[in-house]
Amino acid sequence: MPISSEQKLEVAASRDALQPTRRAVAPELEAILYEPIAVLDHGFVRVVDYMGDDSAIVQAARVSYGKGTKQVSQDRGLIMYLMRHWHTTPFEMCEIKLHVKLPIFVARQWIRHRTANVNEYSARYSIMDKEFYIPRIEHLSPQSKQNHQGRSEDGLTELEAARVLDILKTDSQNVYSHYEELMNVDAQGNVIDEGKTGIARELARMNLTLNYYTQWYWKIDLHNLMHFLMLRADAHAQYEIRVYADAMIDILNKWCPLAYEAFTEYRMGSAHVSKTGIEVVKRMIGGEKVTQETSGLTKREWDEMGAKFGFCDL
Amino acid sequence: MPISSEQKLEVAASRDALQPTRRAVAPELEAILYEPIAVLDHGFVRVVDYMGDDSAIVQAARVSYGKGTKQVSQDRGLIMYLMRHWHTTPFEMCEIKLHVKLPIFVARQWIRHRTANVNEYSARYSIMDKEFYIPRIEHLSPQSKQNHQGRSEDGLTELEAARVLDILKTDSQNVYSHYEELMNVDAQGNVIDEGKTGIARELARMNLTLNYYTQWYWKIDLHNLMHFLMLRADAHAQYEIRVYADAMIDILNKWCPLAYEAFTEYRMGSAHVSKTGIEVVKRMIGGEKVTQETSGLTKREWDEMGAKFGFCDL
Amino acid sequence: MPISSEQKLEVAASRDALQPTRRAVAPELEAILYEPIAVLDHGFVRVVDYMGDDSAIVQAARVSYGKGTKQVSQDRGLIMYLMRHWHTTPFEMCEIKLHVKLPIFVARQWIRHRTANVNEYSARYSIMDKEFYIPRIEHLSPQSKQNHQGRSEDGLTELEAARVLDILKTDSQNVYSHYEELMNVDAQGNVIDEGKTGIARELARMNLTLNYYTQWYWKIDLHNLMHFLMLRADAHAQYEIRVYADAMIDILNKWCPLAYEAFTEYRMGSAHVSKTGIEVVKRMIGGEKVTQETSGLTKREWDEMGAKFGFCDL
Amino acid sequence: MPISSEQKLEVAASRDALQPTRRAVAPELEAILYEPIAVLDHGFVRVVDYMGDDSAIVQAARVSYGKGTKQVSQDRGLIMYLMRHWHTTPFEMCEIKLHVKLPIFVARQWIRHRTANVNEYSARYSIMDKEFYIPRIEHLSPQSKQNHQGRSEDGLTELEAARVLDILKTDSQNVYSHYEELMNVDAQGNVIDEGKTGIARELARMNLTLNYYTQWYWKIDLHNLMHFLMLRADAHAQYEIRVYADAMIDILNKWCPLAYEAFTEYRMGSAHVSKTGIEVVKRMIGGEKVTQETSGLTKREWDEMGAKFGFCDL
Repeated sequence: MPISSEQKLEVAASRDALQPTRRAVAPELEAILYEPIAVLDHGFVRVVDYMGDDSAIVQAARVSYGKGTKQVSQDRGLIMYLMRHWHTTPFEMCEIKLHVKLPIFVARQWIRHRTANVNEYSARYSIMDKEFYIPRIEHLSPQSKQNHQGRSEDGLTELEAARVLDILKTDSQNVYSHYEELMNVDAQGNVIDEGKTGIARELARMNLTLNYYTQWYWKIDLHNLMHFLMLRADAHAQYEIRVYADAMIDILNKWCPLAYEAFTEYRMGSAHVSKTGIEVVKRMIGGEKVTQETSGLTKREWDEMGAKFGFCDL
Repeated sequence: MPISSEQKLEVAASRDALQPTRRAVAPELEAILYEPIAVLDHGFVRVVDYMGDDSAIVQAARVSYGKGTKQVSQDRGLIMYLMRHWHTTPFEMCEIKLHVKLPIFVARQWIRHRTANVNEYSARYSIMDKEFYIPRIEHLSPQSKQNHQGRSEDGLTELEAARVLDILKTDSQNVYSHYEELMNVDAQGNVIDEGKTGIARELARMNLTLNYYTQWYWKIDLHNLMHFLMLRADAHAQYEIRVYADAMIDILNKWCPLAYEAFTEYRMGSAHVSKTGIEVVKRMIGGEKVTQETSGLTKREWDEMGAKFGFCDL
Repeated sequence: MPISSEQKLEVAASRDALQPTRRAVAPELEAILYEPIAVLDHGFVRVVDYMGDDSAIVQAARVSYGKGTKQVSQDRGLIMYLMRHWHTTPFEMCEIKLHVKLPIFVARQWIRHRTANVNEYSARYSIMDKEFYIPRIEHLSPQSKQNHQGRSEDGLTELEAARVLDILKTDSQNVYSHYEELMNVDAQGNVIDEGKTGIARELARMNLTLNYYTQWYWKIDLHNLMHFLMLRADAHAQYEIRVYADAMIDILNKWCPLAYEAFTEYRMGSAHVSKTGIEVVKRMIGGEKVTQETSGLTKREWDEMGAKFGFCDL
Repeated sequence: MPISSEQKLEVAASRDALQPTRRAVAPELEAILYEPIAVLDHGFVRVVDYMGDDSAIVQAARVSYGKGTKQVSQDRGLIMYLMRHWHTTPFEMCEIKLHVKLPIFVARQWIRHRTANVNEYSARYSIMDKEFYIPRIEHLSPQSKQNHQGRSEDGLTELEAARVLDILKTDSQNVYSHYEELMNVDAQGNVIDEGKTGIARELARMNLTLNYYTQWYWKIDLHNLMHFLMLRADAHAQYEIRVYADAMIDILNKWCPLAYEAFTEYRMGSAHVSKTGIEVVKRMIGGEKVTQETSGLTKREWDEMGAKFGFCDL
């Protein structure tokens, strides 16, 4: 259950209140406004507010590029053009605000994107909820041999997996009961033993593990959102942040469908080719049989490029 | 006339279209949405979009500070508290987008505030309008003797003022007709002489003077907007940017009246007192007669502080 | 021991290599360059590089303010003036790079300052060291009753404190041995059991507690450093980040002694007085007896202001 | 003469003073430190300070990626890898400070790059120098028909060019003498007519044209510098800013030769290929004859891509 019953009532109340506005409205996004989209075992993403839509991108671009590009039929072409040529400022004219619940180790990666506004739940003021992330068995993978940072394709035996889950659950529960004991306050905020003195919340929190959930309001413009999504929806990103990125790509699609389309064409599915790589493609197109040895590329680059352009086995 | 008749129609059309939304709505701001507010002789500010209101500040703060501060009656107190203690992140959760028309020399000061998004009219693509700023006589002031950057209180003679206005107008008109001649294109975009070749717009624009008007879409969060306003509505700011700041303070009042109140109390009318200045106040409150010589302050600081706290003539 | 013996050799080697430069040099900072300054039980701060000194601030200011302020004797006055009037851009012209080792829960506060560059030790690539923070007994304080976030002055009994330390130590050690078991790799990177498969580092790290140490390179300009220090050396900041701020204030003093002096006068020891607060001071200076009731200030503001200006018991 | 004789003496003095430092030193950059590199008719770029070199990038990357990549022989490979995979944070660990003199219309484009620190010569405090940019005849080109913003290849007739230069020179001189008259102060700061009152500098400056030179100190990290250079050294950038970018690329080469090499391979000479574009390349490599019609690309994209990969005339 990613959201408390109290929060559920708030969400329902917010969703019911319809007011007239003169601003741009994104109907598909309105339809899911405030609704939590479940991610991982206790996490969620929900859209709390937004500003602008596809037409706001176009409007801003036309301030820059002036008259003569006014037909509505050209909106799609203009957005595709802007994305292709990295004219990023018009995309900055849209803004979105999300409420996200996520494990602390995911939050630590996420926050590295600096061009955003954040208000995080404060464990100095408030008691952390007893909610921690436990991976599903199919996501328990060993260290990758290739890329030094990710996971391999291979899995663990059933017995090994069971032991992993047992450790994670037991330790998570153990540190939380100690967290309560350290504060002498339980999860509901009640003093445990009136005759004792606990330590401050800001201190006790250090006993929690990194799989505990935190939450924040996170506000970002469309350009920087897409930059985040490009990096974090990538196959090399850690699974536990990728699922958040995937959920947000769906949100993007509901919010600005044309920008989403351009994002898919020119960012997510695209390739960056080096100077030497361009020469390789030219030679191949010209009919030449190029090998890694004759390409001028390192083995690693050759493989990376081959995987993108399908010539690995040529 | 700060806005073209074509733009007027657009504004009217945008204003008429009311749609339902589940988002927070600021009714007083809706009432002026899209409407240009005249500034200087040809400039304007108009609100094109916004996100959030006072309640969004409170909502974000409560994510951080947790439960137990939920009464609506406390919204005002919470916003005052946040502003007083420089807890700035909840104010970043509101965003506003303005369309501004302003002289280039004002735009050059304005753009120094980096934490904003901008799409400016491009003089590489488009022909600059023939609109330039001419000050009113009462704003023609000589260089200040005191602060080395502003204007003095004294004025010019009527004759001197007339000569100043004449220079400004004549030169402005002169450089524009040459701008057209350089491009071989007139203000409406028509070729002047089919038999001639003009130079590119990106080059010809260099012949325009800095009082020519440009325009941009400018998007900023509430925290950074207030920082901008604090600096640019200050008495030491140049008059020509101050009038824009003043117009935006009115907008702030319509948008987030509680944040506006806190801004007035803790920013616009406030004073910053140095370590030594605190000692001076303490001694004065204690009944001691302090002079600049015994204060530990320089003459300049003493005067600045005396002006704020009214003890200059003690 | 905050630094490994291997690192010690690197530090010594770096410190020995002297090369000539035409750049500005800060001799007192050179004297401690690369040397770790111990903070908390296993943490440190060390200066790895820097750019500019007090003269760089002055030089940048003089580009803006032009000729006629050239005497070297005026450097101090100019820096005091810039700080007093919040002319912040000249301070941005100096830059410093620090290597910091700090507990993760401190790192999470620290990273909220976005205007800095960071490279953090990656627990996706590398195995975390077995180093965790255990507070000293005198820092084990209960939750503050007043400010809802900090610690109170009162302490725990000897027995209570012993129990707290025991929990923290035991859990920290426990989660680390499980961290090793989860990866099937020990702290030195050796496989524990060749017959078993462990999980990836990026997953296993989630079992560590927030008092584990991480490290990063952190680069920031002087203006933003001072903003960080003002907030984090404040009495309301958590003790565990305040000690880092204190260490960096010493560094600031060695790097830019004039900026340090101005920082002490106009930031650290200063007060911000509201519009209503100014009126209160004026009346008090005028000899009037003002009480909280007649002040126009709330009880809380009155107390905060009284504490600063010493009239609480008037 | 891009630099005054007074400044020349300062430069010479700065260059003579050699001091020992323990910091990283870039010898080729030291060799040109403080020396103005002439750009356009009166502009320049000169390096005033810097922090870090290629080894600082490597050092920061190794904090993140940990042990086991320590051989010096791998520095080049690591920098190439970081650049190829857009791991940008290690490049942010180097910083450079430039003193630039540039026409105002160029400064207006330049300042759009927000992630930098700037101190500009203030025309509120100081009198602008009588220096304005006049293009060379070979740079007087008409508006491009293709890209709507740049210049075409075609030139003007000798007569047309002469007229253009005459307008630019005459107007530039005219507005400056009026600038002096408006202030009643000449270029040297002397009052022109003791019996008259002029207007403040902040007002008079508005009569200057956009080809007048301004100057600033500009400080930026290596990552953001390369982003600036990629955009501004591009063939689509305006000639007058491109020449500054070209000068800075030479500086980059002297400062961080390995980063320069990676920049050349993966940024300047590279291509970005869309999802559909990848399919086109795959089909062509596979021997298929693809035309624009069968490619799935628009005419414009087909041409852009064909120009990069040399299949326009296939």
